Amino acid sequence: MLPPWDSAEPLSGARYSAVELATDGERVFVLDQLALPTEERYRTYADVAGVAHAIRAMEVRGAPAIGITAAYGMALAAAEARGLSSGGYLDRMTAAAEELCATRPTAVNLSWAASLSMRLAREHADADGDARWSEQCQLARGIHRDDVVACRKMGQAGAERIADGSTVLTHCNAGALATGGYGTALGVIRGVRDAGKSVRVIATETRPYLQGARLTAWELSQDGIDVTVISDNMVAHCMAQGQIAAVVVGADRIARNGDVANKIGTYGIACLARQHELPFYVAAPWSTVDQATPTGADIEIEQRDRAELTHIGGRQLVPDEAEVYNPAFDVTPAALISAIFTETGVLSPADVAGGRGT
Amino acid sequence: MLPPWDSAEPLSGARYSAVELATDGERVFVLDQLALPTEERYRTYADVAGVAHAIRAMEVRGAPAIGITAAYGMALAAAEARGLSSGGYLDRMTAAAEELCATRPTAVNLSWAASLSMRLAREHADADGDARWSEQCQLARGIHRDDVVACRKMGQAGAERIADGSTVLTHCNAGALATGGYGTALGVIRGVRDAGKSVRVIATETRPYLQGARLTAWELSQDGIDVTVISDNMVAHCMAQGQIAAVVVGADRIARNGDVANKIGTYGIACLARQHELPFYVAAPWSTVDQATPTGADIEIEQRDRAELTHIGGRQLVPDEAEVYNPAFDVTPAALISAIFTETGVLSPADVAGGRGT
Repeated sequence: MLPPWDSAEPLSGARYSAVELATDGERVFVLDQLALPTEERYRTYADVAGVAHAIRAMEVRGAPAIGITAAYGMALAAAEARGLSSGGYLDRMTAAAEELCATRPTAVNLSWAASLSMRLAREHADADGDARWSEQCQLARGIHRDDVVACRKMGQAGAERIADGSTVLTHCNAGALATGGYGTALGVIRGVRDAGKSVRVIATETRPYLQGARLTAWELSQDGIDVTVISDNMVAHCMAQGQIAAVVVGADRIARNGDVANKIGTYGIACLARQHELPFYVAAPWSTVDQATPTGADIEIEQRDRAELTHIGGRQLVPDEAEVYNPAFDVTPAALISAIFTETGVLSPADVAGGRGT
Repeated sequence: MLPPWDSAEPLSGARYSAVELATDGERVFVLDQLALPTEERYRTYADVAGVAHAIRAMEVRGAPAIGITAAYGMALAAAEARGLSSGGYLDRMTAAAEELCATRPTAVNLSWAASLSMRLAREHADADGDARWSEQCQLARGIHRDDVVACRKMGQAGAERIADGSTVLTHCNAGALATGGYGTALGVIRGVRDAGKSVRVIATETRPYLQGARLTAWELSQDGIDVTVISDNMVAHCMAQGQIAAVVVGADRIARNGDVANKIGTYGIACLARQHELPFYVAAPWSTVDQATPTGADIEIEQRDRAELTHIGGRQLVPDEAEVYNPAFDVTPAALISAIFTETGVLSPADVAGGRGT
């Protein structure tokens, strides 16, 4: 299926996008990540309820990408509220923000995007409906554009640390599909390629949700970057065989002391990288650093449903009698992290802890 | 489905068995491990071709279990050859041995069992058909019985190293389903329980073939042993959280220097155990020690089909354009192994290297 947008140049900067707003500002296009890697299917949503559904159903995922999607949802809400008075408009926008923020309660990017949109709504509540809608579209597109710019800067900074001809291991999907475009960890891979160096990727399949197998392998293949999928338990063997030059992963949250919460499995890879004397890099925007969280130990680990482990594609893999433990992420101590790539450059975890480099 | 055998006490010593010979010596019952964990389905085979199919199709797997199955297959061949002359009998037995050994060419247990059966065949070729058949049944049952005895001794020896109330991590399935009964790594778990101590198990699902999720979780649940399934990438997190007291795994082959080849993922777990200061134990019979292999580096790593990683239950998980790397096992250096549990007791890798303790 061809991408449905009417603009020749989607803001993602690629042939595909996790999310885009139509040029008329009336529809949001979401690449349904549940259908990947076998089908590239875009969903079209024309109202807030549809956009909220897309986030809740995880058709779009990845903290930056769902923040952008929420901003586009707020733009659709402004379109719906064109004929309303300033009071009606603010009520409608408030309800939309609440609906969008309730879809994935733990992602800070949702509430961040919604709060930017609400601030604008209060500023221009007295303007006419079309102007309010147009400004909300402009805000959302700006959030999208800024995210892609940040990813490109991060990628450029990180690329300097990756030598020509390297094979880089990555985990989960911190790519174009998780952001406005270009990606964080995969932005570094693209940065290496865009700097004229050759690069190969080994992608862990990333059980239980298989973001590596389904999404990272798909988007790198789309871009013509050589990618090999392994199961998560093959990492140590690949390292011992000398197949990996460096590790680059994304981050869900970075504590004030530089500890990094990321997809389950990240901490184990960091341990193995240290044992095999390989650099372990994190690529993440400054917005990921949570000053309200002193250390990794203060980060609550989300527990996910057992069905993610017990079933795949309708097939039961675990007997009903067995227990299942399914933490969604783990914490990598700052001491295991060689450097953090941000939009302001290459930082040490200590720099992040000290707030330096912003 | 109820186990189909007519004897009240299968040689496995449990309610279920990977493989059993009917008391009349005319049929072999194989628990179809492809149907687990959702269905306990026994297949009945009355000839060598059927038994060879069961091994080839991996209805029965695990080196000791397929050795026993091959011995039972040879007994069925002797039944088929009852009316033949000594020359015809030896031809028939030789053909059966070749057919059985060709099913899984890399497993030494197959050729070991077949060669014991052939030696007996040559010794008693001139006896009458029923006597030859009866002696082959007796040999095969002896191989089965010896394997269970070895597992129980190994379990008893290993159990002394596991404290009451421990949670033990295991990988893949080195259990009753992979042996004549009781198991090697899971034999240690049963040994702990049989010594009157409480024990809990964390089982890695063991991608790509999911032996941990499907088989280990099933057999421990059957025995009422508390088991929790995790994905392979959760091991480090569980260790960091203090959830694991020790690791016990099986072995596919042990090199002369004590290096251990086992299911892919074992080496990574050994690295993580070292980093978290946890004991890492291997449970394996002396027959696993291969004096012809000087070190782990001399063990060729079998590469398996990409489909094991790309599809589960008909669902495609990896795009066609991506490469896949699928090594079946890895090598854990002797230096990372705290002790090896054998039927002669608890040994250090150095003991094994020196051939001490046999």
